[in-house]
Amino acid sequence: MARWEPNARTRIEEAALSLFAERGYDATSVAEIADRAGLTKSAFFRYFSDKREVLLGGEDLLVELFSNAIRDALPTATAIDCLTAAISSAASVMTPERRKLVRQRQAVIAANSELQERALLKRSRLSSAIANALLERGTGTATALLAAEMGVLAFSFSVARWADTDNSEEFITLVSSTLGALQDGAAALAPSREPRG
Amino acid sequence: MARWEPNARTRIEEAALSLFAERGYDATSVAEIADRAGLTKSAFFRYFSDKREVLLGGEDLLVELFSNAIRDALPTATAIDCLTAAISSAASVMTPERRKLVRQRQAVIAANSELQERALLKRSRLSSAIANALLERGTGTATALLAAEMGVLAFSFSVARWADTDNSEEFITLVSSTLGALQDGAAALAPSREPRG
Repeated sequence: MARWEPNARTRIEEAALSLFAERGYDATSVAEIADRAGLTKSAFFRYFSDKREVLLGGEDLLVELFSNAIRDALPTATAIDCLTAAISSAASVMTPERRKLVRQRQAVIAANSELQERALLKRSRLSSAIANALLERGTGTATALLAAEMGVLAFSFSVARWADTDNSEEFITLVSSTLGALQDGAAALAPSREPRG
Repeated sequence: MARWEPNARTRIEEAALSLFAERGYDATSVAEIADRAGLTKSAFFRYFSDKREVLLGGEDLLVELFSNAIRDALPTATAIDCLTAAISSAASVMTPERRKLVRQRQAVIAANSELQERALLKRSRLSSAIANALLERGTGTATALLAAEMGVLAFSFSVARWADTDNSEEFITLVSSTLGALQDGAAALAPSREPRG
């Protein structure tokens, strides 16, 4: 049986992110991460399949959270209500203790093109998950696809703003203002209300 | 001086795509592509840096076409007018002779996860190029970002539909109907017109 490793997941994340910042992502090994976290290598592998998953593994959880939130929304909920519910469901992982980790994580990804490509893939999966969950509710195709892109934009923007050192607003407040701004953007892209000609 | 190689670029594309279909992308070499095209390897490298560029090199041209079209649009043009101009500018490369090539290209990319990741990167660059060109015109941030995603969706959808064997519509007609559908989607995501409560 595995030993009890209190906060092992967070300890691995903290160790990995500080090592990535010190030595660079490529030059850091799983053994070094485990060592810094005070764990064995096999303990590391109970939580993450490799060092990349320490950075990007959370996206799978997001796909699940977002899909479930949209699936569980009331039948009368609009596409925007669904997006709000989906992105807000991520508030459970945007705790004050995680702000610094998220900020470090974004810096590491921004500095490495392979990680950026992988992050784009995860972003695309998140967008597909939102679109599919909306389509299953009967949302029209164009609305579902555009809403999915809007949801991913709102989420990325809210996370970046939330992790910013200057920010003092709650994640959920940022989601609401970001989605509001994007809704105004959607209004600017909607067909003109005045009849043409 | 390079020999004159009539239609060399198209011959390379045709040779590459038929070899990818026959043997798979990974199992095909540049030498084999050049040979099938009736060209030398060094002739190949005058047109493409590697076999991946045969599939994905066109995206750089698109970035340029889209950015220029948005930059050249009238000062009074709306974001939608700019998107229409940008995507329509690609009509010059969507000629009847290229339909089959585009269809084959999409099948090869869909079957290879490395190419899919690279295609996502190109998609993301196209989206950034649209957003930046709109921001430079003074479009608001939320509108520019959402319009960029809408533009990429409209373009991808129009290309896929256009390349479809069942399709008989012109590229430009498909762009217009796809953008129209996405505009209706935007209306569904805009703030409600009725005052709440």
